[in-house]
This record gives sequence, structure tokens and C-alpha cells, in this order.
Amino acid sequence: MSTVENQLDELKAEIVSEVPDDISISDVQYEGPELVVYTRDPKKFAQNGDLIRQLASQLRKRITVRPDPDVLSVPDKAREQIMDVTPEEAGITDLDFHADTGEVVIEAEKPGMVIGRHGSTLREITQKVGWTPEVVRTPPIESSTVSNVRNFLKQERDERRDILERIGRQIHREEMSDDEWVRITTLGCCREVGRASFILSTPETRVLIDCGDKPGAEDEVPYLQVPEALGSGANSLDAVVLTHAHLDHSALIPLLFKYGYDGPIYCTEPTRDLMGLLTLDYLDVAAKEGRAPPYESEMVREAIKHCIPLEYGDVTDISPDIKLTLHNAGHILGSSIAHFHVGDGLYNVAFSGDIHYEDTRLFNGAVNEFPRVETLVLESTYGGRNDYQTDQEDSERKLKDVINETYDEGGKILIPAFAVGRSQEMMLVIEEAMRSGDIPEMPVHLDGMIWEATAIHTTYPEYLRDDLRDRIFHEDENPFLADQFNHIDGGDEERQEVADGGPAIILSTSGMVTGGPIMSWLEHLGPDPDTTLTFVGYQAQGTLGRRIQKGQDKVPLGNSRGRGRSDSLTLNCNVETVDGFSGHADRQGLENFVKTMNPRPEKVLCVHGDEQSTQDLSSALYHEFNMRTFAPKNLETFRFL
Amino acid sequence: MSTVENQLDELKAEIVSEVPDDISISDVQYEGPELVVYTRDPKKFAQNGDLIRQLASQLRKRITVRPDPDVLSVPDKAREQIMDVTPEEAGITDLDFHADTGEVVIEAEKPGMVIGRHGSTLREITQKVGWTPEVVRTPPIESSTVSNVRNFLKQERDERRDILERIGRQIHREEMSDDEWVRITTLGCCREVGRASFILSTPETRVLIDCGDKPGAEDEVPYLQVPEALGSGANSLDAVVLTHAHLDHSALIPLLFKYGYDGPIYCTEPTRDLMGLLTLDYLDVAAKEGRAPPYESEMVREAIKHCIPLEYGDVTDISPDIKLTLHNAGHILGSSIAHFHVGDGLYNVAFSGDIHYEDTRLFNGAVNEFPRVETLVLESTYGGRNDYQTDQEDSERKLKDVINETYDEGGKILIPAFAVGRSQEMMLVIEEAMRSGDIPEMPVHLDGMIWEATAIHTTYPEYLRDDLRDRIFHEDENPFLADQFNHIDGGDEERQEVADGGPAIILSTSGMVTGGPIMSWLEHLGPDPDTTLTFVGYQAQGTLGRRIQKGQDKVPLGNSRGRGRSDSLTLNCNVETVDGFSGHADRQGLENFVKTMNPRPEKVLCVHGDEQSTQDLSSALYHEFNMRTFAPKNLETFRFL
Repeated sequence: MSTVENQLDELKAEIVSEVPDDISISDVQYEGPELVVYTRDPKKFAQNGDLIRQLASQLRKRITVRPDPDVLSVPDKAREQIMDVTPEEAGITDLDFHADTGEVVIEAEKPGMVIGRHGSTLREITQKVGWTPEVVRTPPIESSTVSNVRNFLKQERDERRDILERIGRQIHREEMSDDEWVRITTLGCCREVGRASFILSTPETRVLIDCGDKPGAEDEVPYLQVPEALGSGANSLDAVVLTHAHLDHSALIPLLFKYGYDGPIYCTEPTRDLMGLLTLDYLDVAAKEGRAPPYESEMVREAIKHCIPLEYGDVTDISPDIKLTLHNAGHILGSSIAHFHVGDGLYNVAFSGDIHYEDTRLFNGAVNEFPRVETLVLESTYGGRNDYQTDQEDSERKLKDVINETYDEGGKILIPAFAVGRSQEMMLVIEEAMRSGDIPEMPVHLDGMIWEATAIHTTYPEYLRDDLRDRIFHEDENPFLADQFNHIDGGDEERQEVADGGPAIILSTSGMVTGGPIMSWLEHLGPDPDTTLTFVGYQAQGTLGRRIQKGQDKVPLGNSRGRGRSDSLTLNCNVETVDGFSGHADRQGLENFVKTMNPRPEKVLCVHGDEQSTQDLSSALYHEFNMRTFAPKNLETFRFL
Repeated sequence: MSTVENQLDELKAEIVSEVPDDISISDVQYEGPELVVYTRDPKKFAQNGDLIRQLASQLRKRITVRPDPDVLSVPDKAREQIMDVTPEEAGITDLDFHADTGEVVIEAEKPGMVIGRHGSTLREITQKVGWTPEVVRTPPIESSTVSNVRNFLKQERDERRDILERIGRQIHREEMSDDEWVRITTLGCCREVGRASFILSTPETRVLIDCGDKPGAEDEVPYLQVPEALGSGANSLDAVVLTHAHLDHSALIPLLFKYGYDGPIYCTEPTRDLMGLLTLDYLDVAAKEGRAPPYESEMVREAIKHCIPLEYGDVTDISPDIKLTLHNAGHILGSSIAHFHVGDGLYNVAFSGDIHYEDTRLFNGAVNEFPRVETLVLESTYGGRNDYQTDQEDSERKLKDVINETYDEGGKILIPAFAVGRSQEMMLVIEEAMRSGDIPEMPVHLDGMIWEATAIHTTYPEYLRDDLRDRIFHEDENPFLADQFNHIDGGDEERQEVADGGPAIILSTSGMVTGGPIMSWLEHLGPDPDTTLTFVGYQAQGTLGRRIQKGQDKVPLGNSRGRGRSDSLTLNCNVETVDGFSGHADRQGLENFVKTMNPRPEKVLCVHGDEQSTQDLSSALYHEFNMRTFAPKNLETFRFL
């Protein structure tokens, strides 16, 4: 018998001895990091409100209880009973019964009302019908991404269960090594912005953190080919952790599956959906630009199928010697700081991913309290000695000034923005400014994936800033549903109309002017001296956005669009930069993050910034806080312990 | 056609155009790092004294010229002609003709007289007989190791040629990567003494430097199992370089062949022979102590078969982007500093191996002049702030005092010594002291492998200090042949006789009292209060030698010898330490090595010393010479460039 079988037998015996005698335990299985307990008495289990929580705390496992398939009520009957038990205002839009696991997925406009206080309504449902309810939110704005992902996962449910069972057994395998060490290997984003990728390794476990591309340098990908990365096969990795969905962190995650990886990807649920959206678009852009895409869309589906969504704060076993906890990073929807607890109290490492330390309109500020952290891997995008940004209030005032001035001149405001994050922040600022009369009402056109990304934001309000979440729960106050927002879904014809029309604000991807509909907007509006092209986000080295920001007025036009226009156009528009809207902490924010971090780490690796920024930040943290700091290069390995 | 074929065709064309028209070139092939040129006119080639040197310098290759097999004279006739051409004093002891390559191996007591001034006699031989002569020395003291290795290589000549041809093609393959970086990965001997092992890697090439065991901690071996070492297979290595034959650098070299490695091992010729001697003994000791040996003796033969001997100063291509040069390290016979020139002027790294900076009686001091060196990996055995040793003269005086005092008390002097290095140094000191009357004449018994190791020293006098080399060339002055030296070849019976007899000096292995005949000598002489146990070499942490040196007087006796004696014995003898004879530079020597190094490196990695020593040395070099210094841990990777 394998050691995992032994372990499960022991766990079953322990559970049997803990639950009341009248509750039968028919089976105990791992599914990913969770322990699934099958019972013929799901109703009695549900009556005993605290039982699952008690078991979880005693066994130090995440526990799910499922009914034995043969004690389930008929779906039609169950459907009726569920509708009876839940209040009508919950707005149930779909019920999906899975006889194999005894689960019913309830899609509702107000999931909270299906769950009830401390899960009381859920327990009531189980007591009535036996089925185990799982609740998801009906997107307030229809999102094709969310519905595609959900349908796909529904369709792949069987295979996914097999995958999770296999992963569960790998996570709970016996430890093999007596050795003790913790190492970080840098595969990208060191002394540069882009291609984030690290390996955290112990004698037992190898975890890849992020796997992104490099905007403006498409051929510079993470160093996956070196022996310590995937040299001994992609399955030498135990787990992949994705901090957030931006392409410089996520673009090459699906590639891992092409290389044969078939393990888990840990991330938040919104990160999973946004990764799906952004990587499919990444393939699309590559195809449009005539570059060979590094993988096929099938691999994006594989990645989604292997995602194990975690909520902020869930402490999760991802291998015999590593527990992972994701914490809010304040950067974009679902963005996380990944905290790794190695061994039983041996060592702790936190990877910041990209962070914003202060609250923004969209998000609460990044978490910097942890049970323990010895080493912090810290982004340094704005780590340079002069990288102080104006504060949000000043930034908003400047943005409003730019809008008002351009409006007065009869021009349009063209804002290149990342689909995910900055666009929604802009929407909130603009919506409020119009509501309060600070700027005149005019249409706000959203082009590229901004609309879709916004829909995903409204699907996961739990991940937004507290007060914004509450507003979205009340449909009439959902700022993203304001009338002035228009989704450009009519292609270049609609753009032409907008260009020929009256005052307007246009938010369009890509955020660094490296392709996408912004190129088309530049053609329409760039030659017009009344237009104000307004940068609100970080423009990386090598991107067209950076060059325009620095004064270049010639813009090359891709021939691939084949319209027979000239090969470059001359910009006559105004170019403005309004900083302070970045999703990244500025130099002060990074220092504050470390200064108030609890506990203060012993070592900090400054990454994800250009050479000067990482060195400046490394040196500053060393001098201010007397910690050991480093500005690693790519392809180095640091050992702790 | 492969790129190597193209390359060889081009080289052949270039050679044809360079040599006079009457010299035909029938073939051009790689054999390991050498380019072998076959000609039907070997005699004409030989007449043209400088032709090979010119070609080598123009093609930037090491060139060997061989006759086409069908132009060779009959061996019997050639034998006569060779004996005619060479002076009788050359003392030719063997001639071995290899028709497949047209080579004749000439074993002679005085190889220099077969070679002649600037190779004039060699050329004369070729002109007469067509065969290409290769000269080796007849050991002045018979060495079973040397003759075993030579016979084995003769027997495996065909397979070896295949191996060399394959390696040659790998070395001269086309470069594949545009990337530029140089990395060092530490697999052992960092913050510890023992298990030396490093990987030097570029996008093109991976080289393993040393692969040793750790005295006193047999289960601590280099981290070969991590992905960046052999994770993608032992053949992911392009080359192995062995700095010297001590087991803490060489013991696990044969293991690589068990793991499937079949590439070259670069080292000096004496290092090859000593490695054979020491690794076979290592297997022997493991078997005697009841430990499972990590590999079989067959693997030692594989290692020897794959050795490509280099002479000090030979610049050798070992891969498309790395040239290796070995330089005298002054530590033991054949010990080398390995200098790597990466790319075409891109970067230079020197691995010190173990060094002795000052001249000793045996060796010239370590070389520290290089064309370029950016990074030095420096041993730190005596790098601690107080690791200053007395100088050689004081040490010798103290040793003579110890001998005289013990002699006066009627006791014997028992010296645990490494077979290789310290023993021969001791022999030279003792021989001179007796000759000059500083100590009384008495028998000096050599036990363990000391005699054999001494024989190997006399086989390769080119690797000894200039004046010692000259003395060995004159048989009557060879100090190793002095009458008082006695080889203990009669086992424990002979030891008993010595113990029962009069005054004597005993040199016995192992040098750190971790096994071997020294254990038997401790039984015979340890309880005698007139005996002086005299340490003359470094005693590593965890070894019995270190414990005795620190005052322990109980010595556990292995039961494996099954003599029914008690499990431990009590030492009543005197214990003395005479330092200054170490094969290692002391703290001053290490500083002087760096101080006078030309050019001064930018970075120094302090390795091969305990934690305190490496950190002390790292800190001292930083403060004194303002260079970037590190005291790496095992399992780290440093990137340069």
C-alpha cells in the first residue's frame, strides 16, 4: 500500500472517531490540496454546524464534505427545494447538478444571500437536499470570459477531478530528504521590467512563480531552458504560482503545458479568468503581427483546467514541505503576494508580485502583515531614487485639467491603458468627476478588451476595495454601469464615427502602445493638434509608448493591416503624462511597504525594475533598515539557510 | 554535411595551401582538442622544422602530424633505426609501434635525450622511419600505477581513439546561442573543507570542476543530484576538469561515468595517475570499513580512459566558447590552477584548486600571472584571521627538534601523512637533515601508498621544483632513493618488527587518521609514552586526527579487522603538531597570491575553508584590495556579465 493510502486510511479512522456515531464516513480522498470526505449522511453533517471547521482545524487540512451519490435527492426535486430555501432577491440564474460528486453549482446575482450568515443558508440547503452547494456570482455585466471559463470547466469536470486527485496525492506524498535548504533562482525580471519568473526550491519541492513575457522585447522570455529551470523536464516542477494576470507575469504560463507540465497553477479566481482573457489576446496579437505564437489556444485551456483557485488568506499545502498563502497585493484584480511557509517553521519567503501599497479607488492597499517572513522578493518598478509620484488627489486634479483643457479646445482625450486595472481606475475617476461636475459629461469609449475586463471586475467584487464592492452590490450604484461608458464593438467604422464626432474620452489598449486598437486611434486622432494623448501608466523601455512619451513624433504603421496607407504617421497631438495612477507603488510606497512590514524581513531581493531602480532601492533599504539587500541578475541562485 | 565536416574540409584546404607542394595531406581529423594531420610525406614534414608550429599558430589549433599507415617502415627496421639515432644514455626501455596511427611510443629513462634540442632528435627519427614518436619516461622507481595505466591505455587504444574523435567533434561544434553570460554554480566545498565541486556554465557549455569527497563525513558528497548539476543527465556536461588528485577533489570523478558521463576529463598526466591510485584505494578503504562503495573499480578505468592530459600552459579548446589552461598550483604533484577563457575575450575565470604560493622543497610556488582574469575562485583552507603558519625554516627546525628529542628518549616518531605531497616533502626534509647531520641516521619507514606515490613523483620530474628535477635526472642524487627509506610491504608483521626495534621515523597514511595503516601504527606505538605522534598536515573537522590533535586520547578501533582486541585504545604517546608543511598557502600566502596576482581580479569567491575562514578571507580581501568578494554557500549560482 502506498504511503498516501496509509495516510488516507489514518485520516478516515481519525474522522470516524471524531464525528458522532450516527454519521457514516464512506470514503476520504484528496482532491488537490483539499481533503474530500464522503458521507451517506450529508444532512446530519450539515446540521452539525461547526463539525467541518473543527475537523479542518484538528487535521490541519482544508476539508470538503460530499454526499455519497446514492443518498441524493432527484435533481428536479432538489431544484424546487433550493429555490424554496433561498430568498428570491438572491437572483439565482443557474443550477447545475453533478451527480458524480454530489455537488450543485448555484449561479446567483447575490451569492451572499445563497450562502447566508456564516453559511447558514448553505447548510439548510444541504440538510434539505443532500447535495453540496457551491455558489458563484452571475456577472452584473455579461462577461464572455467568465461564461467561457465556467462552461469549459463544467465540460472538463471529469478530467479535472482526475487531475486534482493526482495532484492531491503528489502534495501529500511522503518527504524524502533529510537535507534542509531554501533557494530562489531568478529566471527573469531581474534588472529589467518584464518576463517575471522565479523558482523557489527545497530538497523536496520546486515551485515556479510567474512566467511572463517582456513588453517591447518579444524574444526575451524567461530562461526556462537552463538546467535548473526545466532542464530535467517541466514535470520536475511541483507547482506553478501566478501572482497576477498581467502578461509580463502570465504570458508564458500556457507554454509550460506545451512543455509537458501537468501540475497545478495556484492563483485567485479572477487571476485565472483574466489570464485566460489576456493570453488568448496575446496569441491573437502575435498572429496579427506575423509572429509565430509560442503555443496554441489549446494550451490556454490546459492552463485553466489546471488552475486551483485560492482565496486571499487560505493557507494551502502545495507540497509535503511548502504551504502557500496568497494575500492582496493592491495592483490589479486578484493580484497577490505569494507567501511560502517552508518546512515546519523552517523558513518563509514572500514574493510581492506587483504591489500598490496605498489604497486606490479600485483596491485596498497591499497586505504587509505575515505570520513570519525571512526573505522578501520585492518589485522595484518605481524603485529609482527619483521615482516619487504625485499622490492620487493631485493626479486626479491634473487628469481633470487635461480633460477640461482638451474639451475647451474641442479636442478628444486619448488614453492608452492596460485593459486590466488602470482602465477601471480611470473609469472610476472619470465617472465621479462627471457626477460631481468637475468635468463635462461626454461619451467615454472603451476599446480593446477594456469592456470585457470591466465585466470580470464586476464578477468578483470581493476582490475590490470595500466601499466599491458595496456599491456594486447595489446595481443602481455600480459605477461601471454609468450611461456615458460605451463599448467600442463596431470596429474601425465606429472609431471613425467617434473621431468625426464631438468631445469624447477614449480609453484603449494596449497600454504601452505596442499594438492593438490604440494604433488605430493614433491614426484617427494622432495628426489632430486638438487631441491630447495622455499616458497614465508605466511605459517600459523599448515600447512605442516610451518613445512617444520621450518626444518621438513618428509612429510606424504596421503593414499587416494592408490599408495601403503610408508606413508612418506624424503625431501633431499634445502628449501629456499624468502619473500617480500606476498600479505600482512608487519609491515612497515601496519604502513604506517595507518599513511597516510586520515582521520586518531579514533579506530583500529587489527585482522587477531596471538596473538603476533595483540598485537604488536595494541600497536605500540596506541603509535605512539595515537589512541584507540584493539586486539580483537573471540566472542566479540564492540560498537561504 | 555536418558543420564539423565543413570545418575539417576548410582546414584541410588551408593546410594544403600552406605546406610546400611536395607534401601531400591525405586527411585531417579532430582527436579531442587536437587537430591530426595525416600525410604520405611524414619525412618531408619533419625536415621542415617549423612547419607544424607555423600551422598551429595560424590555425590556432594544437596540431599533430601522423604518417599515412602505408608509408611506414617495418617496425623491426624502424626499431633499429631509432636505436641508431638516439644516444645510448637515453636509456630506451621500451618501443611500442601502433600501425593504426603511425605512432611509436618510446619509453626512456631520459626522455630529454630522445627529444633532443627543440625536438631535433624526434624530427630525425621521423625523417628516418616515418613513424611519429611519442616519448614517455621510464619511472626511476618502479611504479605499478604508472605501468598499469600505461598498459591499460595501450590495450584500450582503439576505443580511446573513438572517444577522442567524438570529443573532438563536440569541442568543435558550431556555437548555437546568441546569449552571453558566465555562471558559477557551487556544488560543494563552500563554507567547508571537502567535496570540492563547481560548474562553470555559459549558454553553450557546462564544465564540472572537481568532484571530491569530504573527509570525516562520507555521506556528504557534492550536490550532483540538483537540476543544475546532473538533473538533465550527466552528459549535459561538456567537460570535467580535475585540478589535482586529492580525494576531496577527485574521489567522485569515476561516479560520473556510472551516471552515464562519457566526455573528457582534463588534468595533468600525474594527476591522472594519482587519481587512479587514490580512487582505487578509496574503494578499498570503503570496502574494508563495510561501506558500500559508490562505484566499482571499472569506473576508475573509465575515468582514466577519458582523461585528456594537458601540460601546464597548454591553451586548449574544450568547447566552442571555452579555452582551458592549467597552471602550476604548487600544492601536490600535477596540481593545477584551472584558467578558463570564455568567448573571444568575453570573460576569464580562474579556479585556484588548492594552492601553495611560496616555493616548497617539492614544488615551485603557484602561478599567479595570467593573460586576463576577471573572477578568481580561491581556496581558503587557511583563510582565517589567525591562520598564519610558521615559515618553512622554522617548521623544519621544529620537526628536527621533535625527532631529536624523541630519539634521545628512545622513542619513535610517527607521522600521519597524505600519501601524496606531504610525505614526499617530509622525505626531502628528513633526507637532507640526516645527510647534513642535523638528526641522527635511522630507518624511515613508508607505509600505505607513500612508496607508490613517491615512485609516481619520480616519473614526472618536470612537475617538481627546478632544482629537485635536476637532481632526479642524476640517479645518484635522487633523494627519494636514499638508503634509509624503507617500503613497508610486509604488512602487520613488519610493523610489529619495527615497533619492537630501535629508533625510527614512520610516515604512514591516512593523513587525517581516518583509516589505513596509521590505525595499526597507533595500536603498536600509541600506548608507548616515548612515541611522538606528529601532525604535519591539515586535520579537517570531524576526523580522528583533529580530535587527537585537540586532546582526545581514546581511539576507537575498527572491529572489521577482527583481531578480538578491545574496541578502543588509550594513547599515552606525545602529540605534537608541526605546521608550516601544509600544501596549502597560509593566510599570508593567500593574501600574497592575490596581492601580486597579475592582473588583479575584479571578483574573488572564497571557498574551500570553514565558514569563519572563508568569511575572514573574503572580508580581508575586500578591505585590502577593494575587490568584490564573496563567501558562497553550496548550491548557489553566481552570474558574471
